[in-house]
Amino acid sequence: MTTKPAFQFDLLATDGRARAGLLHTPHGQVPTPIFMPVGTQATVKAVSPRDLENLEARVVLANTYHLYLRPGDERIARLGGLHAFMGWDGPILTDSGGYQVYSLAERRQVDADGVTFRSHIDGSEHRFTPEKVIAIQENLGADIIVCLDECTVPSDYDYNVEALARTHAWAERCQAAQTRDDQALFGIVQGGVFPDLREQSARFLTARGFTGYAIGGLSVGETKMEMHAMLEVVDPLLPVRRPRYLMGVGTPEDLVEGVARGVDMFDCVLPTRMARTGTALTHTGRINLRNARFADDPRPIEAGCACYACTHFSRGYIRHLVHAREILAHQLLSIHNLHVLLAIARELREAILAGGFQAYREGFWQAVAAGTGDEASGQDGRGPVGRVPGK
Amino acid sequence: MTTKPAFQFDLLATDGRARAGLLHTPHGQVPTPIFMPVGTQATVKAVSPRDLENLEARVVLANTYHLYLRPGDERIARLGGLHAFMGWDGPILTDSGGYQVYSLAERRQVDADGVTFRSHIDGSEHRFTPEKVIAIQENLGADIIVCLDECTVPSDYDYNVEALARTHAWAERCQAAQTRDDQALFGIVQGGVFPDLREQSARFLTARGFTGYAIGGLSVGETKMEMHAMLEVVDPLLPVRRPRYLMGVGTPEDLVEGVARGVDMFDCVLPTRMARTGTALTHTGRINLRNARFADDPRPIEAGCACYACTHFSRGYIRHLVHAREILAHQLLSIHNLHVLLAIARELREAILAGGFQAYREGFWQAVAAGTGDEASGQDGRGPVGRVPGK
Repeated sequence: MTTKPAFQFDLLATDGRARAGLLHTPHGQVPTPIFMPVGTQATVKAVSPRDLENLEARVVLANTYHLYLRPGDERIARLGGLHAFMGWDGPILTDSGGYQVYSLAERRQVDADGVTFRSHIDGSEHRFTPEKVIAIQENLGADIIVCLDECTVPSDYDYNVEALARTHAWAERCQAAQTRDDQALFGIVQGGVFPDLREQSARFLTARGFTGYAIGGLSVGETKMEMHAMLEVVDPLLPVRRPRYLMGVGTPEDLVEGVARGVDMFDCVLPTRMARTGTALTHTGRINLRNARFADDPRPIEAGCACYACTHFSRGYIRHLVHAREILAHQLLSIHNLHVLLAIARELREAILAGGFQAYREGFWQAVAAGTGDEASGQDGRGPVGRVPGK
Repeated sequence: MTTKPAFQFDLLATDGRARAGLLHTPHGQVPTPIFMPVGTQATVKAVSPRDLENLEARVVLANTYHLYLRPGDERIARLGGLHAFMGWDGPILTDSGGYQVYSLAERRQVDADGVTFRSHIDGSEHRFTPEKVIAIQENLGADIIVCLDECTVPSDYDYNVEALARTHAWAERCQAAQTRDDQALFGIVQGGVFPDLREQSARFLTARGFTGYAIGGLSVGETKMEMHAMLEVVDPLLPVRRPRYLMGVGTPEDLVEGVARGVDMFDCVLPTRMARTGTALTHTGRINLRNARFADDPRPIEAGCACYACTHFSRGYIRHLVHAREILAHQLLSIHNLHVLLAIARELREAILAGGFQAYREGFWQAVAAGTGDEASGQDGRGPVGRVPGK
């Protein structure tokens, strides 16, 4: 048991449901709203920690399921813990692995006590229980850890009732299993697309007094309208002075509309995954740099963007790198895409602090509607930017 | 025609045959001896220009054959030339493409006037003549350009006699074709492994008064002993006050032994290519980070190394990245491997300026012989470090 400073979340301003805050962790402060780059295997793909510092990233994710399987949480502990291992001295959040067991692992078998699964790497059999997942996350040593939850098909009511009972029982066991006091434990609100289950979950977890609240199961196929409806159910039920983290969600429009519904923290693999397909995010849509029309384009990816890629390289050059299959294409597009999301989070925070969130939100959607003439690729399976239901 | 400052090479010190100098170019000064990172397709693989600046790289290569085929030299000219295109404001050297036509292109047909070949990308037919290759390099706009030469099987005497005649005729045509005065044109000494042909080539080109002299055809299968013998033939014949560039050669031991034989400039894809196989260079040998014995190793790749990889990450972490096929593995190993070669070049220069080259050379080989207990992988096809003939 260490005696590092306790976690604290200062709610600095609200503007409608939108919130601006400051989360204190043992590895530094996190201004909210925040976008958290995802470092699944203890590295944000194609982006070094030095690049993350230049991007002013304030907190990164890593993945319990992946790191437990490879290189192993005990090995990471021997090498000094996750911060030392991955060379990132800022705040880290590890998820519980529940989502990866649902989406990646093979032959998943859930029972009341936990979940047995086979590794997607080598087929070996493993078992996660609430206690095991806390032990792994204590070995990893992130600043923020989350409870084991059961991810579900969001639209199956009966399944969600059963799964939610397990998720809640596991949340209590995770709380009881925690031995370190320098890690903030977040509960995960589940309940599919069902308002009554989401309400039940928010009330159950709030009564147990978690340091923060993750909202899970809203990045797995439901519509934007359903996601927004669930956020609107949960928002008034969660404690005001605790951070809320919408798991696995993070397009530009998701940030704006999530913040409008009380969310403080976001993460998504989209910016780095899109980079590897040659796609760039902008404030107003997406462009695919593979396109021939960029071959002679001397402009940066996004006009006015302050990122390293946009201040040093043309669309024409990046298109060349994409076609030549050069790694630098991944690096530059990842840096740019992360910058866009981090910048939007900063802009949202400033707008909230200045009482101008609604004006920012309206300006954002007007710019998207006006567009840049560039295509919306819809690569996240949610349809193109600008057609978000519930706006 | 621009009026940028003329090229100049200051020979600052000699120590035996070893030389320390300063090459002035329109984009900055290059201290010699120097190792030049290779940016084949207008990017040093997995290394950004910002990383190159942090590495204190002073000059980088790019490849005429590759850039002519994709994205096209005229396109690069439209986008502001190679420096602007690749975001590198320091000196650049482009080779003539002769080596790539020999090693990569298909259905190569050489005649007295030039060479016809098919693209390795799409099979399309192209033709390089001396005039064409100068025009391409003038479109690209590098600080240092080189003549079109014919690469050969180094051990076939009759072929080398014929090829050398073409290489020399082409060198004169390249000189005549040059229209820009802000680019230094280097001749290329060829002649296979035959001292009489190398002598003939050095004398012929020296008589034509090039700004610098490349030494070609010594990275294509001959032994170290043959390479050293050819350097020893050429060294006393080339003008003392012009830089000499040994093309495509650049292991740590090659730098030390090349400098001992009068070479000023080196380039090699080895450091970045090895990085992509998980192999790290050190001053005393090579280590393959895939190896299981590094899994729990908290040490940096090389003790005392000042590079970003070694000052921030353990062997254990980099091994994890290699196994997880993370791009950051390529980035970190490329940075480290380039750092080793750049550092050795700086150490050689300091030793020469201080009159201590022989002591440095002896210390280098003693350290290699003592080794670190790590394997020599011999991945460049020249056999392990420490068994270099001719030492």
